[in-house]
Amino acid sequence: MDEIQVGLIGWGTVGCGLAKVLEDNSRMLQERLGVPLRLKKVVDVDLERPRPIALPREILSDQVEDILGDDDIRIVVELIGGMEPARTFLLEAMKRGKQVVTANKALLAVHGSELFAAALKHRVNIAFEAAVGGGIPLIRALREGLAANRIGHIYGILNGTANYILTRMAREETTFAEALSEAQAHGFAEADPTLDVEGVDAAHKITVLSSLAYCCELDFDQVHIEGITQIDPSDIQFAEDFGYQIKLLAISRNAGERIEVRVHPTMIPQEHMLAKVEGAYNAIHISGDAVGDVMLYGQGAGMMPTGSAVASDLVDLGRDLLVGGGVRIPPLACEGGAVVRREIKPMDELVINYYFRFSAVDQPGVLSKISGILGNHDISIASVIQKGRQVKGSVPVVMMTHEARECDVRLALAEIDKLQVVTAPTRLIRVEKNESPHEE
Amino acid sequence: MDEIQVGLIGWGTVGCGLAKVLEDNSRMLQERLGVPLRLKKVVDVDLERPRPIALPREILSDQVEDILGDDDIRIVVELIGGMEPARTFLLEAMKRGKQVVTANKALLAVHGSELFAAALKHRVNIAFEAAVGGGIPLIRALREGLAANRIGHIYGILNGTANYILTRMAREETTFAEALSEAQAHGFAEADPTLDVEGVDAAHKITVLSSLAYCCELDFDQVHIEGITQIDPSDIQFAEDFGYQIKLLAISRNAGERIEVRVHPTMIPQEHMLAKVEGAYNAIHISGDAVGDVMLYGQGAGMMPTGSAVASDLVDLGRDLLVGGGVRIPPLACEGGAVVRREIKPMDELVINYYFRFSAVDQPGVLSKISGILGNHDISIASVIQKGRQVKGSVPVVMMTHEARECDVRLALAEIDKLQVVTAPTRLIRVEKNESPHEE
Repeated sequence: MDEIQVGLIGWGTVGCGLAKVLEDNSRMLQERLGVPLRLKKVVDVDLERPRPIALPREILSDQVEDILGDDDIRIVVELIGGMEPARTFLLEAMKRGKQVVTANKALLAVHGSELFAAALKHRVNIAFEAAVGGGIPLIRALREGLAANRIGHIYGILNGTANYILTRMAREETTFAEALSEAQAHGFAEADPTLDVEGVDAAHKITVLSSLAYCCELDFDQVHIEGITQIDPSDIQFAEDFGYQIKLLAISRNAGERIEVRVHPTMIPQEHMLAKVEGAYNAIHISGDAVGDVMLYGQGAGMMPTGSAVASDLVDLGRDLLVGGGVRIPPLACEGGAVVRREIKPMDELVINYYFRFSAVDQPGVLSKISGILGNHDISIASVIQKGRQVKGSVPVVMMTHEARECDVRLALAEIDKLQVVTAPTRLIRVEKNESPHEE
Repeated sequence: MDEIQVGLIGWGTVGCGLAKVLEDNSRMLQERLGVPLRLKKVVDVDLERPRPIALPREILSDQVEDILGDDDIRIVVELIGGMEPARTFLLEAMKRGKQVVTANKALLAVHGSELFAAALKHRVNIAFEAAVGGGIPLIRALREGLAANRIGHIYGILNGTANYILTRMAREETTFAEALSEAQAHGFAEADPTLDVEGVDAAHKITVLSSLAYCCELDFDQVHIEGITQIDPSDIQFAEDFGYQIKLLAISRNAGERIEVRVHPTMIPQEHMLAKVEGAYNAIHISGDAVGDVMLYGQGAGMMPTGSAVASDLVDLGRDLLVGGGVRIPPLACEGGAVVRREIKPMDELVINYYFRFSAVDQPGVLSKISGILGNHDISIASVIQKGRQVKGSVPVVMMTHEARECDVRLALAEIDKLQVVTAPTRLIRVEKNESPHEE
């Protein structure tokens, strides 16, 4: 094989980044691989809209068959996103014996099992470094670098938009809405930021990572997803008073038979490395039984970082093609027979620490009523702040609990929110204590 | 191949960690690889001394030929450290067609070219994830994950002992000697800490990383190495006044034809992610042309983290053996012909910012004399602190410079230190500004 021919479906932002990396670093890539990587055909339904990177007319097409039907194209890159037709194109490419690369976290989270089974069946590789964490090589870390570890948990800041907004809210004491507008003005948030701020994007990513970490199939619909739109600036200030930062964390934990997979605003101790991740950056904190705590940090999105992740997959698959080794690493980095379906633990069974912010009228006996109800539900209070600080006409009473069960919390808050003295629904934020035994 | 047989030379701390990982996670490793990894023989000159992990008598031997001469042993792990006989054993193993794994950064830094050439000649793989950063998968990040990037620079906190000592000095305002004793008491420093606190260990590691990042051969003797033994608590306090932290940084920068490779105490801005790495942890900050800034963080040493890195190499080499692909990735991740020898830029040509602490008698005109000499040598002052704080009987005058040339600095300080009003040699600490364009 004197060159590796590549077909790209989807000429969008990441596709432009890929084309630019392949051109800018073509000599270096050839030195790494031994032969050139050639972008032979680029297919998109709309070839006319303006793009940051121009491509030669002769490699462009609006017919996907120009890639799928070309036997010389050995690797197909899917960068169109969404469910269909991305799913069909990937399945068809694999059926025809092509190696595939995708950055499509939503598709992998929802239809990963089907795609991975197809890769095994047709004896081709499916690579997806760009699907999570942009250019941060974290898929490889889970598939190979940490291969000798049982993963205990993963904490991820997996959405740069949400982290940018929370960082601005903490630094400038602005509201969510103000920080969102600013993020949009600076290009850190889309015109429609729903998937980012509601946690769905992070949920797709943590589902993919969890499948890899625990070598299992998961049902995306069971993932608990909660975004940051309800975070009030006062919560961020109270968190700091308690020694915490609020981050939108994607959390996955190996909880015996079942797995915890959840995305929600989370208080983490200020001294935790993840608390120090600011702005649009991503970071993933992985705990392995042998390696201890590892963190990977970098830009989780963007044309060039994500494009370079796709290019690294091309080098990898190119190496596999050149040595003729077939499938060297199965999709989930373990033998097909070892992949099992695992249930996601229902939120009601979660046992964890909580932060509550109650909005109550300023009169005697309120704290006693609230704490009485908590006590009846086996929820014990670790600390209380009642500062007389006014938030929306009420005096907030703020608490951190000891470990409590989520279903007890749900019932207790429903009861508390019915009290006459309580003027607005209670805010709940989950707390993750620093589990690192010795981060100093 | 129904199992992968492994021979281990060197039954020390990391060897015990490897044996424990292979035993604890044997089922998972088999699921990953498809066949068992079997530790068939362990060779050490001293089989009697007490160790944290016991091994069955029948796999122990004090004869290295029991491994090298066994044709069924396909992978040889070298964990004895030092130059000889480690070098000879590795060369001999490769000559006999065995895949090799080593954690020996000193050997790789000094004799890497010879070992890598032998691997290419005999068409075997040499893996060394455990040589740098313990269980942090950073060798893989450079060899594969960031393969599509031109690396601009690497900043590494690559020695946990030194970082622990500097963290304690900063937090407790203790002296170097006190912090070192404490590190020894807590098991974070060896009885003889020379290699760690003098920067030699970090220099070995950054040399290996630089060879990988820039695909080149380097002369270890040209690396500038400076440890932390001369750091005074006052320097750490002054650094904080200027908004910096002092870290023992291993720095490597692609400077055109030549490469900067140096290890020395360095002031970095407090908001830089590396400034937040505390205690015995390691971190490596890599800048790539497409990916931007990436950081990997974790435990850089220890029985289990390092043992797990060796085990991940065994999985990798096992996969190569099973698909029969031969050498899939060359030792430096580029074709042999692309590996060139590159010069290390002499320190005198460095252009950088500096921190100076002058010890001067407290009388008028001193600052004018010092700044006059600096000006004569083209060194311009960015800011000055003169607090009247007494350090060892003198009043320190502390300065940050604009960018200056190291040879000018050397000449200027020699002249200043000869002044009658200067009571002790001037302390110099190099400063790295935050090059990240947008870390918020």
